[in-house]
Amino acid sequence: MDALNLPAPQGKPRIVVIGGGFGGLNFVHALDTRHYQVVLLDQYNYHTFAPLLYQVATAGLDAPDICGALRKSFRSKKDFHFRMLRVRGIDDGAQEVLTEAGSIHYDQLVLATGTRANFFGNDKLAAHALPLKTVPQARQLRHHLFQTLERADLTDDPAERSSLMTFVIVGGGPSGVELAGALSELRRHVLQRDYPDTDTDHLRFILVEGGDQLLAQFSDKSSDDALRNLEEMNIELWFGKLIADYDGRTATFKDGSTLHTHTVIWGAGVTGEVIEGLSDKSAEKGHYLIDDHMRVREYQNVYAIGDVAYLTSDKWLQGHPGVAQVAIQMGQRLAKNFNALAKNKETQPFEYFDKGNLAIIGRNRAVADLPGGIHLNGFPAWFIWAVVHIFYLIGFRNRLFTFLSWVGNYITYNRSVRLVIEPTLEEELREAHTPATP
Amino acid sequence: MDALNLPAPQGKPRIVVIGGGFGGLNFVHALDTRHYQVVLLDQYNYHTFAPLLYQVATAGLDAPDICGALRKSFRSKKDFHFRMLRVRGIDDGAQEVLTEAGSIHYDQLVLATGTRANFFGNDKLAAHALPLKTVPQARQLRHHLFQTLERADLTDDPAERSSLMTFVIVGGGPSGVELAGALSELRRHVLQRDYPDTDTDHLRFILVEGGDQLLAQFSDKSSDDALRNLEEMNIELWFGKLIADYDGRTATFKDGSTLHTHTVIWGAGVTGEVIEGLSDKSAEKGHYLIDDHMRVREYQNVYAIGDVAYLTSDKWLQGHPGVAQVAIQMGQRLAKNFNALAKNKETQPFEYFDKGNLAIIGRNRAVADLPGGIHLNGFPAWFIWAVVHIFYLIGFRNRLFTFLSWVGNYITYNRSVRLVIEPTLEEELREAHTPATP
Repeated sequence: MDALNLPAPQGKPRIVVIGGGFGGLNFVHALDTRHYQVVLLDQYNYHTFAPLLYQVATAGLDAPDICGALRKSFRSKKDFHFRMLRVRGIDDGAQEVLTEAGSIHYDQLVLATGTRANFFGNDKLAAHALPLKTVPQARQLRHHLFQTLERADLTDDPAERSSLMTFVIVGGGPSGVELAGALSELRRHVLQRDYPDTDTDHLRFILVEGGDQLLAQFSDKSSDDALRNLEEMNIELWFGKLIADYDGRTATFKDGSTLHTHTVIWGAGVTGEVIEGLSDKSAEKGHYLIDDHMRVREYQNVYAIGDVAYLTSDKWLQGHPGVAQVAIQMGQRLAKNFNALAKNKETQPFEYFDKGNLAIIGRNRAVADLPGGIHLNGFPAWFIWAVVHIFYLIGFRNRLFTFLSWVGNYITYNRSVRLVIEPTLEEELREAHTPATP
Repeated sequence: MDALNLPAPQGKPRIVVIGGGFGGLNFVHALDTRHYQVVLLDQYNYHTFAPLLYQVATAGLDAPDICGALRKSFRSKKDFHFRMLRVRGIDDGAQEVLTEAGSIHYDQLVLATGTRANFFGNDKLAAHALPLKTVPQARQLRHHLFQTLERADLTDDPAERSSLMTFVIVGGGPSGVELAGALSELRRHVLQRDYPDTDTDHLRFILVEGGDQLLAQFSDKSSDDALRNLEEMNIELWFGKLIADYDGRTATFKDGSTLHTHTVIWGAGVTGEVIEGLSDKSAEKGHYLIDDHMRVREYQNVYAIGDVAYLTSDKWLQGHPGVAQVAIQMGQRLAKNFNALAKNKETQPFEYFDKGNLAIIGRNRAVADLPGGIHLNGFPAWFIWAVVHIFYLIGFRNRLFTFLSWVGNYITYNRSVRLVIEPTLEEELREAHTPATP
C-alpha cells in the first residue's frame, strides 16, 4: 500500500530522506538508485545555498540566485521521488513517516532536517526578532529593512526616527559579521543616495556579541581582522552583552540597559529540527546523537546528517561545527556506505576533512583560515571566498548569472533588488501611531 | 506646515503624483524640476513593467527582472521626493492628499493610479479567482501553480487530481493569450520532465472568452493567428462562455454548466483606482473624465493620466486603449505642458501616436499589428516583440541580464525560478481534506 502517488519500490529497499539541505542533497546525489528507491521530502520545493542568505537580506542577490529547484536537480535520477510536504512525526514501529497527506513506509530513514533559530523559550523575542535561516526569512528581513527606512522618511518625530534608524544584529559569528558588513556597504553605497531627505549618517548598525571576540571558531588573527574591518566600516561593536528581551520597540539586555530600536536581527543560537516519534534516547539538547556511521542512537535503520546530528571524535570533542561542509561530507559518506552495502563491500566511518573557514565582510574585506594554518585577509581572502562560493553554486539558477550579478555589484555598487515586493505598510504605520511600550 | 519629512517647496508649485506606473514614471522623468517640486506617492517602492507580469507568473522571469526601484530611477532628479504609502483620499478644498501618515498639500495633483481587477461585485469570485495585475499577484499565481502540481502528486484520488490539473484562464485579451501560451510551453518543457510520477498529459489549460474571438482589439488576421497557435499548443478554447461564479473548487458558467478546477486565473475586467474625495462629476464607471489637456472634469489643478483616465477623441470614440503606450505618452505630454507653462509657452493637447499591438504566444509564436496596416506573425513578430520589450526595460534591474535570461530560456527551455518561496501547504492540504463544496 503506497500512499502519496508513490510507485512500489519493486524489491529494492526504500530510503526516505527528510530535508533537501546540503546533507540531503548530497546524499541523494551520491546514492546509487539501481540498488535503492529514494524518496525526498521537504516543505519547500527548493534547496537553499544558506551561506548567501545574508545577500538576499541586504538586496545584493535575489532568492532564485541562491535557490535550486529540487525536482530539477534530480531530473535525470532514476527511481527518485520528491514530495513537497511537512513531516508531522515518525512511527518507528511501523517504519513510517507521518505527514498531513498520508504515511510513507521506509526501510531506511535519513534525517537531514537542519536547524532553526532558537530563542531559548522567550516568546516575545521569537515574535519580534528577525531570524535569517530560510529564504522567506531573508526576504522578510529585506522588506523590513527598506520599509523601516521608508517609515523613517514619513515621521516628523526625532525619537521615532532614531529608533527606526537603529539596527541591532545579535551574534558575532559568521552570519552576524557578514550581515553587519553588508549593511554597512548598503548604507554607504545605496542608502545615502536613495534617501536624500533623511540624514543617513544617523543610521546605526550595532553588532551585539555575548563573548569577547568576533568569529570565535576562527583563528585569533581572523577575529582581529574582522574586528578592525567592522570598526573601519562604522559598525558599533558591543561585547559581553546579552539580549534578554525585545518587544518590537525596546531591547533589554541582561545588564539591565535598554535600547530603542525597531529592528533586532537574530544571528545567535540555533537548535536542531528534531521530529517527534523516535526514542527519547536518540536526541539530546535538540540534536540526534549519532555514531561514526551516522546511525542515530538506539536505531539500526535511522540516520542523521548535517546540523541536526551531534557527533564527537578525538579531534572534535565538542561535536563537529555546524557548517555546510560537514553536512555535505556526511551526506556523501552515508550514500557511499549504502552503495558499498549493496555490493557487499565495506563501509567506512565518517571523517571530516576541514577545508577551513571563510567570512566576507565587504568589498575587498574578508578573512580566511585555510588548511595548514594559512591566514589571509583583504582582497586575497575576498577573492578566494568569491571563487569558492561561485564554485559551490552548482545546480543553481545559473552560476554565470550569479557571478555576473556579483561582479556587477562589485563594480557599480548597485543593489538592484531593493524592492519591498509585499509591503505590510498599513499595519506598520498603524503600529507606529500607537505609543511604544515603555 | 509640511508633514512627512518633506522640505518646503521654496516658492515653486508642488506637484503631487499618485502612482509610479508608466504614466507617473514618465511624467516625473519629463518634468523640469527647476520650476516645480515633485512628490511621488506609491504603496510600493518600485515600478512594474506590467506587460511581463505573466512571465513572473509562469517562472520565466523573477520580480526584480521587471521591477525598477523608484528612488533609484530618480536619484539624480533634484527636488524629487518619494514617499511610500497608501493614499486614503483627497481634500480638494484644502488641496491635500490624505494618507495614514499625514496630509500633503498640493498645488497641482496628478492621478496616475491605474486599474485593478474587477469582479463585478461577486465576492466569491474575488476571493477565489487569481488576478494578475501586480507583482505580488504574479508571485502568488506562480506559487499557486507549482503548489497545485505538488498537491496533484500527493493525492491518490483521480477526481481530485483531475481538478488540480485543470487550469482555467478567463479572458481572451492579450494577458489571457500570453499567459495561456506561456503555460503551454511550461507544460511541454518543464512540467513533463519535473513530474515523472504524474501524467502531465492530463494537464488541461482552458481559455474562456465571452466573445467570439481572441485579441478583439487586434486585427482579424492577428486574432486568427493567435487562435491557430493556441490550438496547436493544446490550449482548450471556449468561446461565448461567461463565468458566473467560482468557489475555489467549482466554476459555474452563465449557461449553467460547471467545471471542477482548483485554479481560475482572472484576465478579464478591470476598473480604475478612483480615490475618494473629488466631485461626483469627475469620474464615471470607475474612470476619471479628462479633457485633451488631461484635466479632470470640474477641476483646474487636478489631472489624470493612463488607465485610470477616460478620454475620447474623433479617432477614439470609445476612449483610448488601456495600454502602456497611452499612459507613457500622456505622462510625457502633461509634463511638457507644465514645462511650457513655466516658461509662458503654449501647451498642446494630447494626441495618441499608435505604435501598434504586439502579443507573444510562445517560442517563435507571436502576432504584431504595426502602423500602416502591417501584420506579422511567427518569428518576425516574436523578434520585434523581444526587441521592443527589452528596449522599454530601461532603468530596470538590468536590461542585459533580463535579455540574457530570456535568451537562456529560449535556448534551453529552462525555467529557473519555479520556486514556491513561501508555501501555504498546510492550509492547502487541510482544505484538500475537507470535502469540496458541491
